[in-house]
Amino acid sequence: MVTDVEKNLVIGIDVGGTGTKIGIVDARGEILARDEGIATGSYPTFEAFVDAMNTVIGRLIKATGSEGRIRGIGVGAPDSNYYTGNIEHAFNLPWKGVLPLADMLSQKSGIPVYVTNDANAPAIGEMTYGTAKGMKNFIVITLGTGVGSGIVINGQLVYGCDGFAGELGHVTMVRGKEGRLCGCGRHGCLEAYCSATGVARTAREILATTNEQSLLRDVKEITSRDVYEAAKQGDHVALKIFDRTGTMLGEAIADFIAFSSPEAVILFGGLTRAGAFLLDPVKRAVDKNILHTFKGKTQILVSQLRDSDAAILGASALAWEGN
Amino acid sequence: MVTDVEKNLVIGIDVGGTGTKIGIVDARGEILARDEGIATGSYPTFEAFVDAMNTVIGRLIKATGSEGRIRGIGVGAPDSNYYTGNIEHAFNLPWKGVLPLADMLSQKSGIPVYVTNDANAPAIGEMTYGTAKGMKNFIVITLGTGVGSGIVINGQLVYGCDGFAGELGHVTMVRGKEGRLCGCGRHGCLEAYCSATGVARTAREILATTNEQSLLRDVKEITSRDVYEAAKQGDHVALKIFDRTGTMLGEAIADFIAFSSPEAVILFGGLTRAGAFLLDPVKRAVDKNILHTFKGKTQILVSQLRDSDAAILGASALAWEGN
Repeated sequence: MVTDVEKNLVIGIDVGGTGTKIGIVDARGEILARDEGIATGSYPTFEAFVDAMNTVIGRLIKATGSEGRIRGIGVGAPDSNYYTGNIEHAFNLPWKGVLPLADMLSQKSGIPVYVTNDANAPAIGEMTYGTAKGMKNFIVITLGTGVGSGIVINGQLVYGCDGFAGELGHVTMVRGKEGRLCGCGRHGCLEAYCSATGVARTAREILATTNEQSLLRDVKEITSRDVYEAAKQGDHVALKIFDRTGTMLGEAIADFIAFSSPEAVILFGGLTRAGAFLLDPVKRAVDKNILHTFKGKTQILVSQLRDSDAAILGASALAWEGN
Repeated sequence: MVTDVEKNLVIGIDVGGTGTKIGIVDARGEILARDEGIATGSYPTFEAFVDAMNTVIGRLIKATGSEGRIRGIGVGAPDSNYYTGNIEHAFNLPWKGVLPLADMLSQKSGIPVYVTNDANAPAIGEMTYGTAKGMKNFIVITLGTGVGSGIVINGQLVYGCDGFAGELGHVTMVRGKEGRLCGCGRHGCLEAYCSATGVARTAREILATTNEQSLLRDVKEITSRDVYEAAKQGDHVALKIFDRTGTMLGEAIADFIAFSSPEAVILFGGLTRAGAFLLDPVKRAVDKNILHTFKGKTQILVSQLRDSDAAILGASALAWEGN
């Protein structure tokens, strides 16, 4: 029975470096209304950005007749601290320092706000609406522009002592100076190889250092999507690129399994569209590199949530948790 | 007020490949009586071994007048499964297959028995009686013959989906065939470098591949203790061995911190007797390799529990938890 005082909806917000998406979500994970039109970078101050989000929230609530029914707002944002509700020194966002996201947005909207790192949102989404429903121990690895991760242990998201745990994109896979320079300033991080940009770098490296024929030689600014398109046509270089990427990712996953022995590792994000080109070498490398104790215990899965929905859904799920 | 029905004592058992230690422990962590005389390898069957433990338990209870006061028995044993209470395929023990430790010992003794992996026992000990008192997120790394680990997240020991989580000795530090062969059959594991035996291997490698003068050239079967003694006398090769060992351990710890962002990493076990020779390069390497987000947040500590006590105390603490 729905009365107009029952708070049975949540709002999910995905704050990205380029765009910010907002959606109203019901308990079954249906997005009732959404707005993907906020250009994050176009606001001179953080407060102007929060005002813009608040205006959109008001409009979506009105459009769906959801006045008084919003239980909470969950936000996934880069470098966000679950404990404090702040964004802290995010180098993908235009505003510097510590930004009091939860405090400011809850004051303006009058709705409780819960904040988490953007890489944790998909893990919460998988647990609430997705592949990980009912699982107590799993890891979601987001393969996008970067590599992010959300880790669930004993049914709880791992935040660590500071709210920032789960930076698996920054474990070191190639030690020393021969490791690729990563966006974080260190060398050899998983992210420098197994992100969408890492795939493009691998493509450029192989093309520059070999004479192998490839469809990719005709592409000007290679992206991971070009590599996928070439792989579909049987291009050997493209297949090799996914093989290397998947192999390294599988080696890393074998180490992650030694840490928390999860039921599943769920891959999420743009790069997973490569399907078996990526997944097959990942599975082979996990199997080859895993400690005998863990052999065959962890499923390697691909998220079934639609990319465009998952970030909103994951963030919104935080608002159920928070109450 | 102690009456003879109040169960205010626990028993801790440390099952090792060579010897098994049993102690009666009170709530303050005092070991009231102990027996370290069981030679694990000398029992032809697992049941004979359990009988021997039960006999010692009976004797210790009688000697301390603890009849009716034992709340539970906690056991740390290799390859043990917290969920089932079984030892599973331990290659350091003389009996093969799945051994029903908790069931058999509780039937014989009439006391509830809780079992955990021997590398988890020190973590429970640190949390109950040691350096980690009051901490919710920390990792204990045991540097002994092998490298073991116990991971605590949100105040709970991490067991994973199968009870075997926390095998940080088997993350891969040197990839490919140039990585040292590890006892687990894989190559390049942390354990193959940063255990006591790893230190001895590093010593042999440096002595074989250089002409550097060293006190260690006069030692026949080099152990980590010899390396320590030489380091105390300023031996350059010995110092280099600890520097390499500590550096790799620090690199590994920087990756572990990216996983769970712990308040502290606590080093435990025989190798920590090397003190600053080991700890200084560990701290330097953590600081050099850590992601900026985590800089300066995690303390690197050495366990303050006495080695000979910690295994018994850690196992015994499990018996408080279990009730």
